[in-house]
This record gives sequence, C-alpha cells and structure tokens, in this order.
Amino acid sequence: MSAPTTAPAPLSIQLGHAHDLPRTDEAKVPQLIERMKAIVGADGVLTHRAELAVYECDGFTVEKNKPDVVVFPTTTEQVVRIVKACNELDVPFMARGAGTSLAGGCVPVGGGVMLALARMKRILEVNVRDRYAVVEAGVVNVWLTNQLKSHGYHYAPDPSSQGACTIGGNVATNSGGPHTLKYGVTVNHVIGVEMVLPDGSVVVTGGPCDDAPGYDLTGVIVGSEGTFGIVTKTWVRITRNPEAYRTLLGVFSSIDDATNTISDIIGAGIVPAALELLDQTILGAVEAAFKFGFPLDAAAVLIMEVDGLAAGIQEEADRIEAIATKNGAREVRKANSEAERLALWKARKQAFGTIGRLGYPSYCTQDGVVPRTKLPEIMRFIQGVSKQYGIAIANVFHAGDGNIHPILMFDERDPDQVKRVLEASGAILTECINLGGSVTGEHGIGVEKLDFMPRLFAPEDLSFMVRLRTAFNPANRCSPNKMLPTAGACSEPTQLKPGRRAAV
Amino acid sequence: MSAPTTAPAPLSIQLGHAHDLPRTDEAKVPQLIERMKAIVGADGVLTHRAELAVYECDGFTVEKNKPDVVVFPTTTEQVVRIVKACNELDVPFMARGAGTSLAGGCVPVGGGVMLALARMKRILEVNVRDRYAVVEAGVVNVWLTNQLKSHGYHYAPDPSSQGACTIGGNVATNSGGPHTLKYGVTVNHVIGVEMVLPDGSVVVTGGPCDDAPGYDLTGVIVGSEGTFGIVTKTWVRITRNPEAYRTLLGVFSSIDDATNTISDIIGAGIVPAALELLDQTILGAVEAAFKFGFPLDAAAVLIMEVDGLAAGIQEEADRIEAIATKNGAREVRKANSEAERLALWKARKQAFGTIGRLGYPSYCTQDGVVPRTKLPEIMRFIQGVSKQYGIAIANVFHAGDGNIHPILMFDERDPDQVKRVLEASGAILTECINLGGSVTGEHGIGVEKLDFMPRLFAPEDLSFMVRLRTAFNPANRCSPNKMLPTAGACSEPTQLKPGRRAAV
Repeated sequence: MSAPTTAPAPLSIQLGHAHDLPRTDEAKVPQLIERMKAIVGADGVLTHRAELAVYECDGFTVEKNKPDVVVFPTTTEQVVRIVKACNELDVPFMARGAGTSLAGGCVPVGGGVMLALARMKRILEVNVRDRYAVVEAGVVNVWLTNQLKSHGYHYAPDPSSQGACTIGGNVATNSGGPHTLKYGVTVNHVIGVEMVLPDGSVVVTGGPCDDAPGYDLTGVIVGSEGTFGIVTKTWVRITRNPEAYRTLLGVFSSIDDATNTISDIIGAGIVPAALELLDQTILGAVEAAFKFGFPLDAAAVLIMEVDGLAAGIQEEADRIEAIATKNGAREVRKANSEAERLALWKARKQAFGTIGRLGYPSYCTQDGVVPRTKLPEIMRFIQGVSKQYGIAIANVFHAGDGNIHPILMFDERDPDQVKRVLEASGAILTECINLGGSVTGEHGIGVEKLDFMPRLFAPEDLSFMVRLRTAFNPANRCSPNKMLPTAGACSEPTQLKPGRRAAV
Repeated sequence: MSAPTTAPAPLSIQLGHAHDLPRTDEAKVPQLIERMKAIVGADGVLTHRAELAVYECDGFTVEKNKPDVVVFPTTTEQVVRIVKACNELDVPFMARGAGTSLAGGCVPVGGGVMLALARMKRILEVNVRDRYAVVEAGVVNVWLTNQLKSHGYHYAPDPSSQGACTIGGNVATNSGGPHTLKYGVTVNHVIGVEMVLPDGSVVVTGGPCDDAPGYDLTGVIVGSEGTFGIVTKTWVRITRNPEAYRTLLGVFSSIDDATNTISDIIGAGIVPAALELLDQTILGAVEAAFKFGFPLDAAAVLIMEVDGLAAGIQEEADRIEAIATKNGAREVRKANSEAERLALWKARKQAFGTIGRLGYPSYCTQDGVVPRTKLPEIMRFIQGVSKQYGIAIANVFHAGDGNIHPILMFDERDPDQVKRVLEASGAILTECINLGGSVTGEHGIGVEKLDFMPRLFAPEDLSFMVRLRTAFNPANRCSPNKMLPTAGACSEPTQLKPGRRAAV
C-alpha cells in the first residue's frame, strides 16, 4: 500500500473531462423540433430552456450540457423514426431512463436529441412457468418486483435507486446492487434485448430461452452505456423468492475487523445474499433520519444476509455469527421478523438520501473496485485521502464484492472544494487500480472517467473496443463520446502513457 | 406437439452443408510450409497426407476437409507470426484444441493452416486467494481440476470430454457439462482472454479482477467459435469444492415420470448441482461395459446431485427423494460413499464411450435445447422419429437444462443410413425450434448447423452478427464459414424464409 500521506503522483487524469463535441448548429434546431413533433406529437416534446435544464446531467453534477430537444417516444417504431430523423439532420442522439446514473452517462454531449424513455413503461409479459418477463426499457426496476410479488418471484438486480431507475438504464450500465454478491449483476438476468441500431434498424438478440447459438450479443450490449444503440425492450429472468432469510447486523469497533469478517465468511465457502458495510459517518446520518437504534460509537456495521431453503439456513447464520464474533464484533444483532429485516434494508437503501443530515449541500458518490482481500488497505487509504484533501468522506458499500462507494461531501458552490473532491476521487480511484482493481464496479465510465480508460487498457485493447463500437455506431452519433476516449485522445501516446494494467 | 408420425415439412435445411471455399492454390503450399517451419521449426509442422488426415474433422465425421499444413506453436508470439504469414499468403487459418467438438467447428474449410494448440499447455498461475487461474489455450480441462485438488478447488465446467478437451476449445464453443445447471457454462467462469486478432495484433480482455469497465469483450469472445481470432491464454475462475454432496439415482418406469420429476425439483426452488437423464438404451450399453447394477428394465434413470454446505444438505436430498417418489420413481438409490458417487459419474461421463457395445459402428450425438417443461414432448417426438426413420436413438443428457443429446446410431458406410440420420437429426432439431428451443446447447453451430441459423434469427439479427465478425475478421480468413451462413446465403431471401423465431 502506498501511504496516503505521500502525495499521489501528479495526475494526468481529470475526472469529468468529457471530450466535447461542437453543439448542434442552432439553425437546425427548429427543423429538428418540427420533425420530433411530427413523430410523437407536440405533447411528447420538450423544448423550453427551463424544461431542458432537467435533462442536462445525471447524478454526476459536475459535467452538464443541455439537449436541443427532449422527446418521449411510446413505441419502438417511434424510436426508429426519431433515430432516422437524427441521422438525416446529422445531430447526435441518446436515450435516458430516470437519470439516476452517477458517472455522467446521461449527459448529452454535443446536444442533439434526448430520447426520454419514461413513457415506454409497459410490463409486456410475465411468464412464471418459464421464469422470464418482457419489459419496455422505461419500466422502473421495482415495478417488476412489485408485479411479481403475488407469484412469489422478484427481479434480482436491486440497485439502491431501484425505486426510480429504469431497467433500460440498468442494462446500459450493467447495474448491481446489494444482492449482486449472490445473484449477479444485470447481465446475469437479461436474456434478450430489442435494440434500435444507430442506423434505425431493429435487432432482437436472445429471447425467452437460454443457450441461444451465435454470438452472445445480449451480453456485450449490457453495459455498453448506450453506445451500440437504444435498447427498447428486454427479456429478463425472474427469480423465485427465497424460502427463508436470516439477516444479521454485526457491530464493529474497527473497520479492519469488519472487512476481515467479510474475507472469512467468503473463505468459509458461504455465499451470503448480501454483505454491506456502513461506516460511522453514514451511520450517524442514517440514525439521525430513521432512529433505528444503531450504535453511534461503532466504527462500522455489516449487514449480513443469507437466504435460500429453510433447511440449513439457521446453521449458516450461526456460522456467520461465530465468524463475526471471532473477528472482534462487539455485538451481532438479528432481524427477528420480516419487519425488522425490511427496516434494516430501508436503512441501507436510503442511506444516500440521509446524507443531507450531515450538513453538506452536495455529495459525490464514488465507485471503485478492489480485490476483496484489499478492502482493509483501501479503507485506510480513503481515511488518509479525507485528511489530506480536507474532504469529509462517508462509506456505505457492497463489501462482499469489493465494490466501494466512498461518498465525498462538499459545497458545490465553492470551486476549491469541487477541485479537491475531484482530486481526492482521482487519488482513490488510482489507488484502486494500484491494488489490482478498477475505477467502476457498477456506475460505468460515462463521461466522468473517460481519462481512466487508457490507464486500465492497453491501446490495442481500447482500439478493439472502438472497432466494436464502430461496427454498430460508425458515425458515433448515438451517445457520442461516452465510455471510450475519443480517437484523437487514443492515438496520442505521450498524453496517455499506455501500458497493460499492472494487475495482468 | 406436432405428431412425429406426420412427416415433417420438406426440409430446406441440410445438416453438415458447409458453404465451401475454394481450396488453397496448390502452388502456394510449399512456400506456406517453409514459412511455418521458419516460425516453429521442422518438428512443429505436419505436412504428410496421412498426418493431415487426423486433422480433417472433429467428432462430426460427416464433413471433412484436410488442412494444407498443421503447425504447433508454443508461444503467443509464434501464433502472431503464423497469422501474419497467412495474411501475407492469403490462406485461411484456424485454431484446434483436442478436436472433440461435435458440430464440425474444427473442419478447416478451404484448407490452409491449422494451428494445433496442443503444445501451449502450461498452467501459468494458480491464485487460490483471489480465486483464479491463468492457463494457455491447450491445457486439458481436467488438468486444471487435478492441479487444484490439493487446494480444495476445481474448475467448474466439466464436459463429458473433460479428460481430452482443451480449455481453449471450451472457450470457442462455450462448453457446458453436467454441472452447468448450478454452476453455469464456460462463459460464467472465464474472466479474461488473450487473443490474437486475425490481423496479428494481440488484445487482452478482462483479467483477474471482475467488474472490468468497458464492453464485455470476454463474454462475446466466449462462444464465438474461433471467428474473432485465436485465444491463446485465459483467466478462469476457480471454484471451491463443496463441503458436502448427496447423489441420488432415481429409477423410473417411464420417461415422463423422470422428466416430471425434474420440473418438480426445480419448481420446488431447489437448484441441484446436476440432473442427468439416461434412457433404457444407453443404460444397457453402460451396464454392459461397467456392470454397475443398473436396472435394465427401467425406462430411464435420473442422476440427481445436490452440493453445498453440509448444513441442510440432507434435508435437500430428502426433499428430492420425496419428489421423485411422488412422481412414480420405482426406487431411489443413494451413493453412500465418495467411491459410489464417483462410480455413478464415471457411468455418466463415459456413457458415450460405451455405445460401441450396442453394435453400431458409428453414432452422431445431437445437441438441442427445449424449455425444461417441454422435455416430455421432445422425448416422445424422438421416439417417433426413431421409428419413422428406422434409426436407433439413445438418450443421455443434461435434463435440468433442457439440453438434450439424442445419440443416433448407424453405419457410416451405408449412404442410405447416413441420409436417414441427417434427416432424423434435422427433424428433431426443427421440433426443438418449434417447441421454443434451439438447435444447440453447447456443441455450437460449427459447419453442421449453418443452415439452421436463418431459422433461428431474422436477417437483421444475422447481419448484426456478421457486422460484429467483420469488425475483427474482415477478410473472414480466420476460421472461415463457421457459425454464420455466408453473406451470399444471407442475402437470398427465397431460400431462407426469414422470420423471427416463433418463441419470441
């Protein structure tokens, strides 16, 4: 571990530095708006400056750009017509779900047309017998689980934003959630998509049956951050609700004890449904908001959940309790009812919403990954960064996956604080790479982390990705300048210091 | 279900009809051989007609073609030089593992250079702490599990051919195996590859850490049947051995009882490690070879295995036993020791090798998928096809996945029998599609099933795949004419009767 008190090497990396495109030619905009109105009707189009401001960014508020027009299609056929019109007028276009992403994936770089998919919100089919559902891209994640409840099923990927985020957006970023540890991320639950390609043609990959022959196109579309086309419909697996749960709360006097507990649980061959860590800072906020009775003097708590068949689950919970105790847990509490369990999950999932209690007007949720065994090191590093840059940092994250989410708190109106937040974020992400991890576990590259890609991938590997994008999106008109550095940047070796990532 | 006694509609589909390429110009061959010898040395090159005959096909013996030269590289750098030489001389090239594939994926269409990867057989790293291994493409599947044994780990994908097949070959076809039901197929265990692109450049996708940002290139390379390039090295997940197993053998008087048992086990929320069905015909062969004491008058047996933590596993096994009994199992036997369990698995995995006992000189193992709930229908259909075409058919397959493997037995020297086997195979695979399934679960399309692709995919979807291949393999010189029908065939609408698959 490089000591956090040693200043990181001067960063050639800038967070949130999108490679800008020139904006759409003003003269085209009236014609663009007319074309959109002709396709979806006047009530499906937003053009007023104040209305457009809502769509200028996502949860990464540092990078903003207004679209020229926002359009709300209701059918795939309308999406096709919109895309074709954009091609004819040579303006960029991109899809947007609920805008809950955190890395600027929703910023309309270069302006152009934003296709807001919120009105494509039908659950088209639920097939419990063959265990799949078909949903339009704008369906909110939790709606599907709600609809499945009476059947005893749910949709497994459960990001903290599941009450707002859309399944189409989850497909774009390959979203995870607390239960990713056992159940996998979005790509493990999407078995087919309908996608409008950037040239306006429609493809269907996969479908209700597993094991389709041919290339695994569905797999490569999931997580492509909208750069291959616009996903309009998805076939998703539905998951039977577990017969039983055991949900434990481990209370620790040091973060090391908590992270060692995680390693030991996994090392024992147990695959918990979730292993979530909340540190003292975030506990204070959650407690202020919800009064759950969390111990405010604990350095960290771990939410530890196992699920599955009733047979054997108590033994599994007992083993977890023993492991936590062996690692110095002060206390291991148990959720004794479904209500207590749900309260615990409410605390976890709404943790981000309680940050306002800590007195900072703004916060930036970072997203990094380290090998699980490096969690103690990265947590110590984050504490050092907090001191070094004078930025308060809270931590609540998917500890079982090694997927950290430091929350950097600041005042957006103070440019110096903004600068320090970006520098501190860069230092943390750089350390994730140094420890053999990466700069995003589930939020994506978006525009925020473009400059990290050449640190993670060799030039050949990046150009392999660009080739892939070019096959489908040759003009780079569909969600331009996301995820992959621009060709110009890629070919400038002095700037990029390419090299295979250290861990390979 | 369409009754099998109704003759299937005249098939526009031919199995094993590769779209031939003209062979390499004879005049080039001596130069080609010299170039290869200069790269790997004379002892790394085969050129004699008799030697080349070994490499003219894989387990699908209907379609054969000799390569012009077989070359055995030992390093990625040699693979690069071979590929570059092939490009300079404009000859096709392709990789071969152990040649155990069953759909003609190893046939060198058009001749050219076959890169036999058998000498790239080093296990480069085993990292138990971070749960991955790095292997060269020619490492035999079971070698890795053998090497991991002392650590208490294994490599999960376990095709029946695991004693011979290579991990590189498994990557090409996305191999499954009996334990696929719980543990997933090859793509779920490969976290990175090193691949030589058809232009000779080398890319690395993924690596030891999960959650890499960017496109999931590893995922789309796995299962691409060698059409994107030559995988030379892979990073694979290693899996902890389960703490405990319970292995049961259900004996059934009817195949329907066995297949209903499967549906009920899954319906109860149990995820067995394996659910394998052997029918009466194959039982006879296995029994003749191994004398396990299988009941020869049973219509089918089911090998049912659960694994995991010791806590609760007996309850799970008891529930499975109760479900089998409720569905009319005559008897449920239990493996009472590790030796008994291994004997049962030996019977399953070597079943194909015992077919010789049944008195047919040749057999063709088919590979199809149906939704699990359609297993009773497809099994009845297969029985009808057997009668209609006068071809004996045995069945041993991954029942839990709905992945059938009818084994059609015949005499290869009799052209009429060969014709009937191909027609019977075509009828079975067509019925798989009609039931909402597909024509391959794990053996791939190869050259055998090319003509089925336009039945499974709409023209837009196929052209999307061709676009992807073209991005990496523009001259189609790397493993030409595999998996995707040739462009000519694709654009001939009268031949192809395109249309979305019925099940979508």
